[in-house]
Amino acid sequence: MQKLRVASFSISIDGYGAGPNQSLENPLGERGHELHQWFFPTKIFQQNVLGKSGGTTGVDNEFAENGFKNIGAWILGRNMFSPYRGIPNADWKGWWGENPPYHVPVFILTNHKRGPIEMEGGTTFHFVTDGINSALEKAFDSANGKDVRLGGGVNTIRQYLNARLIDELHLVLSPVILGRGENLFMNLDLASLGYKCIKNVSSDKAMHLIIEKSTNT
Amino acid sequence: MQKLRVASFSISIDGYGAGPNQSLENPLGERGHELHQWFFPTKIFQQNVLGKSGGTTGVDNEFAENGFKNIGAWILGRNMFSPYRGIPNADWKGWWGENPPYHVPVFILTNHKRGPIEMEGGTTFHFVTDGINSALEKAFDSANGKDVRLGGGVNTIRQYLNARLIDELHLVLSPVILGRGENLFMNLDLASLGYKCIKNVSSDKAMHLIIEKSTNT
Repeated sequence: MQKLRVASFSISIDGYGAGPNQSLENPLGERGHELHQWFFPTKIFQQNVLGKSGGTTGVDNEFAENGFKNIGAWILGRNMFSPYRGIPNADWKGWWGENPPYHVPVFILTNHKRGPIEMEGGTTFHFVTDGINSALEKAFDSANGKDVRLGGGVNTIRQYLNARLIDELHLVLSPVILGRGENLFMNLDLASLGYKCIKNVSSDKAMHLIIEKSTNT
Repeated sequence: MQKLRVASFSISIDGYGAGPNQSLENPLGERGHELHQWFFPTKIFQQNVLGKSGGTTGVDNEFAENGFKNIGAWILGRNMFSPYRGIPNADWKGWWGENPPYHVPVFILTNHKRGPIEMEGGTTFHFVTDGINSALEKAFDSANGKDVRLGGGVNTIRQYLNARLIDELHLVLSPVILGRGENLFMNLDLASLGYKCIKNVSSDKAMHLIIEKSTNT
């Protein structure tokens, strides 16, 4: 069975998955980078994202690596793809340069039609304007039987949780307080939606939590 | 300097410090006991609360023990003291029997005047009807220079946080999702209030977080 998975999604103690005021300069929102201090030193971030050598192994790297295993397609909210609101900037091809770290089809939720953009390294950006169910169907279809990873942001994850479409949610609780930003839990009763934490493993930098949807709710 | 401290206050992944529908049968609210699975096996809970021998040592026990060190008085919200709402039940003397685990003066916030109740073992319950500042002043005065511990519940802690009166907050994040109940963080911008996480230590059962108020905000 193909799954829809969220992986390595960092939140603050007070439940924020991004800081306020996302912009070109602050793609993660103000102070948003503080949520990811567990991720930046890992081998997989250093090598796959920055193209450097070295990086840490251990709990944080293992969980981060798992998030890339058996992934055949991605789904992103439009704010994960671009800092522009409203009419898209036709020159914008994402934050990641010519060879984005996906290497599979990426489906971007948006209200604005745009043709696909083929990038280097196997990544193609597809723009989906007919909703989250359609994006998921397209992603499953193009994933060659593998899982689909939902990258975020908070609002998009909340929509998929509310629809009970996420099968596995790997949250990483970072020991910071943001106070403001995009809150993952506000007015979202995950217990009633059938979600349950089935595993927790901590490093000195964060607590990894695996949350699954029960099949019989 | 005397401090107002919150210690061993457990919250769920989604920020709930108690479950919904607190009652005589469910003093922690529905599923509230799941927040405290890190605490029940510890030596200090087994010995000081249950009067048994044994119990675990280690990270969880160390943090729980620290919460009882140098405490000269407690403050409790009325729901921590009693399941009764409105006019108090004059026969009710708390959840803890004749010898409560405080052994110092305990100041209970309430809207209903009531004379002090002297219990065995050094605990005296005082009922404060003129607000959180008054309760804190009385508690500091009677603490013999030691710190004051604020026991909860969520609503009371939120009031003291909003007033920037809490100096140190030890939260324990338990790997459970409650979905409903009393949320510690809802509409509370702890960062703007000057609170910052300065330490985190995890066990296999929970993540301990020490949050302090900055002195220069």
